[in-house]
Amino acid sequence: MNEVYPSKLLERTVGEFSKLPGIGRRTALRLVLHLLRQKPETGHALSESLSQLIDGVKYCKVCHNISDTDICDICSNPLRDQSTVCVVENIRNVLSIENTSIYRGLYHVLGGIISPIDGIGPNNLEIDSLVKRVEEGGIQEIIFALSPTMEGDTTNFFISRKLAPFNVRLTTLARGISVGDELEYTDEITLGRSIINRVELKQ
Amino acid sequence: MNEVYPSKLLERTVGEFSKLPGIGRRTALRLVLHLLRQKPETGHALSESLSQLIDGVKYCKVCHNISDTDICDICSNPLRDQSTVCVVENIRNVLSIENTSIYRGLYHVLGGIISPIDGIGPNNLEIDSLVKRVEEGGIQEIIFALSPTMEGDTTNFFISRKLAPFNVRLTTLARGISVGDELEYTDEITLGRSIINRVELKQ
Ligand SMILES: [Zn+2]
Ligand SMILES: [Zn+2]
Repeated sequence: MNEVYPSKLLERTVGEFSKLPGIGRRTALRLVLHLLRQKPETGHALSESLSQLIDGVKYCKVCHNISDTDICDICSNPLRDQSTVCVVENIRNVLSIENTSIYRGLYHVLGGIISPIDGIGPNNLEIDSLVKRVEEGGIQEIIFALSPTMEGDTTNFFISRKLAPFNVRLTTLARGISVGDELEYTDEITLGRSIINRVELKQ
Repeated sequence: MNEVYPSKLLERTVGEFSKLPGIGRRTALRLVLHLLRQKPETGHALSESLSQLIDGVKYCKVCHNISDTDICDICSNPLRDQSTVCVVENIRNVLSIENTSIYRGLYHVLGGIISPIDGIGPNNLEIDSLVKRVEEGGIQEIIFALSPTMEGDTTNFFISRKLAPFNVRLTTLARGISVGDELEYTDEITLGRSIINRVELKQ
């Protein structure tokens, strides 16, 4: 589709929406014109909530999950099992596991996985801070919940070597989740079972 | 997916995005977290452009197309053929036809088509203003470019009866576009040819 827009304001907004992943210009146009057909409050609510989120977003100083406070609701919840930490790639994975309602421990969000092709090495991830958490004591088990891909396995291996000096149990999700699957697309039942049936990490 | 969000700000923004058509909560979460991984300017640009569009949007007083000014660039362009008016359902249809680069006349955006099931009658559409444009003189041809559906045909028929008293040629797009297709999904070549090969509207 060529681009002949009758309004610069429209063109600019469509341009911004079409920067979103999976949103082409045609879809962006449809979304923006939909918003223009609603009450002005609808679009303003979207605009303002996004702006406030960007300005106000915090990441938990302990687990690096998204949070409205310096320490997230999970880390600061005395009812959660402080001795178990589940290592995940990203925030979506925390949400996926929380939604199973099965896991009661804490998390550690790496912010990615080791992927030399994408230029992501161990130093780009929250690995040192995980080692430090273990070093400080009190953690008895680390559950690796990375996607069962080559990059996930590489990251598991790298971290498990770093944690080898410590007296901590290292487990990984039961492979009910099929190899090569993205964790976030795994259904909640399968994911919940995989947590219950977690196995010792082979090193 | 249940909804356990680690941040109210995040939850609210995801909620607003998921009100968009075709965007579920999972997709909304993905879009919002994507924006959080970009520079703050990226999300703010989206937020601000949307807000400015909603506050600043105008619709052309002549053709009802979206516009930054009271009279749109098409209506106010002396190089366009002022004697031909193409009647379309919505703004996306104007963009589709403009993108063929074939049509050089003006438009009239109805703002919908007659659809009793959806409670849309002639009075909800810009039909009177079209009749008034014709009444004022200078228009020699009206091209009906509504989607070739039952509602489109009903709308064509209703308007053509209103325009019967006037000495104006009534045409409709050549049916190279297959019956039942939405106009906006028709490829540009087919659409362009349908304009060139337009036929007299049978009454
Ligand atoms: Zn935390
Ligand atoms: Zn106009």
